[in-house]
Amino acid sequence: MKKILTLTLALAASMVAFAQTPASTNVPTKEYPCVDAEGRATFQIAAPTATDVQVDICNKKYPLTKDEKGVWTGTTDPLVVGFHYYALLVDGVRVNDPNSETFYGCSQQTSGIEIPEKPEVAAYYTFNPAVPHGQVRECQYWSEIEKAVRTCYVYTPAEYEKGKKKYPVLYLQHGMGEDERGWHEQGHMANILDNSIAAGKSVPMIVVMDYGNCGYGFGAKKGETMQNFGASFYPLLLNEIIPYIEKTFRVKADRENRAMAGLSWGGHQTFDVALTNLDKFAWMGTFSGAIFNMPGTDFKTLYDGAFADAAKFNKQVHYLFMGMGSEENFGADRFVKSLHEIGIDATYYESPGTAHEWLTWRRCLNEFIPHIFKK
Amino acid sequence: MKKILTLTLALAASMVAFAQTPASTNVPTKEYPCVDAEGRATFQIAAPTATDVQVDICNKKYPLTKDEKGVWTGTTDPLVVGFHYYALLVDGVRVNDPNSETFYGCSQQTSGIEIPEKPEVAAYYTFNPAVPHGQVRECQYWSEIEKAVRTCYVYTPAEYEKGKKKYPVLYLQHGMGEDERGWHEQGHMANILDNSIAAGKSVPMIVVMDYGNCGYGFGAKKGETMQNFGASFYPLLLNEIIPYIEKTFRVKADRENRAMAGLSWGGHQTFDVALTNLDKFAWMGTFSGAIFNMPGTDFKTLYDGAFADAAKFNKQVHYLFMGMGSEENFGADRFVKSLHEIGIDATYYESPGTAHEWLTWRRCLNEFIPHIFKK
Repeated sequence: MKKILTLTLALAASMVAFAQTPASTNVPTKEYPCVDAEGRATFQIAAPTATDVQVDICNKKYPLTKDEKGVWTGTTDPLVVGFHYYALLVDGVRVNDPNSETFYGCSQQTSGIEIPEKPEVAAYYTFNPAVPHGQVRECQYWSEIEKAVRTCYVYTPAEYEKGKKKYPVLYLQHGMGEDERGWHEQGHMANILDNSIAAGKSVPMIVVMDYGNCGYGFGAKKGETMQNFGASFYPLLLNEIIPYIEKTFRVKADRENRAMAGLSWGGHQTFDVALTNLDKFAWMGTFSGAIFNMPGTDFKTLYDGAFADAAKFNKQVHYLFMGMGSEENFGADRFVKSLHEIGIDATYYESPGTAHEWLTWRRCLNEFIPHIFKK
Repeated sequence: MKKILTLTLALAASMVAFAQTPASTNVPTKEYPCVDAEGRATFQIAAPTATDVQVDICNKKYPLTKDEKGVWTGTTDPLVVGFHYYALLVDGVRVNDPNSETFYGCSQQTSGIEIPEKPEVAAYYTFNPAVPHGQVRECQYWSEIEKAVRTCYVYTPAEYEKGKKKYPVLYLQHGMGEDERGWHEQGHMANILDNSIAAGKSVPMIVVMDYGNCGYGFGAKKGETMQNFGASFYPLLLNEIIPYIEKTFRVKADRENRAMAGLSWGGHQTFDVALTNLDKFAWMGTFSGAIFNMPGTDFKTLYDGAFADAAKFNKQVHYLFMGMGSEENFGADRFVKSLHEIGIDATYYESPGTAHEWLTWRRCLNEFIPHIFKK
């Protein structure tokens, strides 16, 4: 009897340990991919005529094995929590998983999977039925510069809908190979804002997410180099997007009420734009910003000399935030150290255990927003 | 000289005829797929290790051929204008085209391509810089029935933003295998509404697009049959979605200001809900509605006897629209004929040259909206 009980307990324990839940990123009714309590993901695809199927996720490829019906299944090692792009490799061709939602990243629509954190840790980016919710509005507008329709995502806070107040605006940029949908779909920015505002940590604000013209690989457009990659976004932002937002929404339209932040290449763009337009922006943040300072750089000459007069800069810019993950090497720590050495006020934040990925950026946004528009 | 000129003209003519333009549904900077003036689409994918690649579009498969670099290219016959889902078949496995935007259809994220109509014909669903534009808002709300977060797309007309007026509401459903994004992304509903309202054809209205719980194949959920497929949506709409909309937006909350319409299975759902809740809806439309009446059906007994008293029905329901494409056999013509035979007022519309596809439904929406909320 005791032996049977022990066996039963052991079985139950292993079932708990390996209980698999469909990923939150799946399309309706799909059981695969699923994730176990240790963060192992199991993938499945029907491919009777294929000779080799793998899953490519978190910089590693895992083989899938075929059953007698031609259905391939395979399980990864435990994966880091958070959101990861992935692809299936069918006879060497990168394909999306038909069971998964797709996300614009890596310059194409690609599969993505959420490896869940503990609910209490994930609470800040999780929908909470108990707090009021803002809206994410998709706005189409005509660009005279591009002679084309463009799309802008605009988050309005919960109280916006019924009130008459005007709000400050954060311009928030995605990274290379992504577009205006990234912060909403991969980043859960609406939940982060809703929760932070409801907790009284952040002031109600409007967040504008537009396409930074960097949704494809380096130099893919004629004449574009690493130096001017995505720079066609800057006149758009200054001359068309900001005026469009200020015409369309109830917005406080001055530098004290205008912030800019961005992830990865969007961080690069943030410094390019905000530091050379200090009459327009008073708050700024880079999240794993692609800003690499060479050894020996004279910081006082960067960005048209924005950092040359520290006292003046510190009076003008009320919050300068640079964050990154502990597992990446994007130089935000070194950059902030250099700024401190010349007397510039700047805040460094390190996301523990994460690399160049959306969990780093969700955390950065959550750390950044409580400090802006308060003076 | 004349010969050379003739040859030049012939060459120029053939170049015009075969000029290829990247599809409007491509992701940024991608040249393929492209479409020529006759509607032939050319697809391209790099797949050096694959042994067979085809494109599956408009119910036909076309082979692609491999060049020495392992890049496969292939061209279709002239395709019908409008929006078509498609897939590449790589060694027999259905995959998305990395060059294309994806759309939730066929119960998964799938590639889609727009084969353009003449600009003047496509004007009603094309973004027009000269008219005011509404917004499409993505709203997340908590469902007590499902104990889950749900997402609702809400179109607000251009004048909504700055005014104080209340508006009538059209509840607009997608088809089987699609979700709340379909009408906006595949259907271009915002452009259709913007253009129709700006032209004075339709009254400004709010349009609500929610998930009809029919985004997967028949019977995929436990206990679901063809009879009750997607019926879990009905209590959601009546008891949660309508109250949520009326709490959140400036809405006229009575039957005279509430319409429902849907495409394909969404048309089935429209009749199921609206005809059995005539105290809540006064206008309704089905676009290729999946409503099949068997020979010998007694129309007076359908939908809890909604059609039993024609005079009463005609007084209650101010507009009943049933549309479909000329190239499909979805029975809207027969259904309307049967309604007319028992004295029910109903309008039949046939979209010339189109089948069970989004161009049919764009046209149906454009025909439907000028007739609602006018009495």
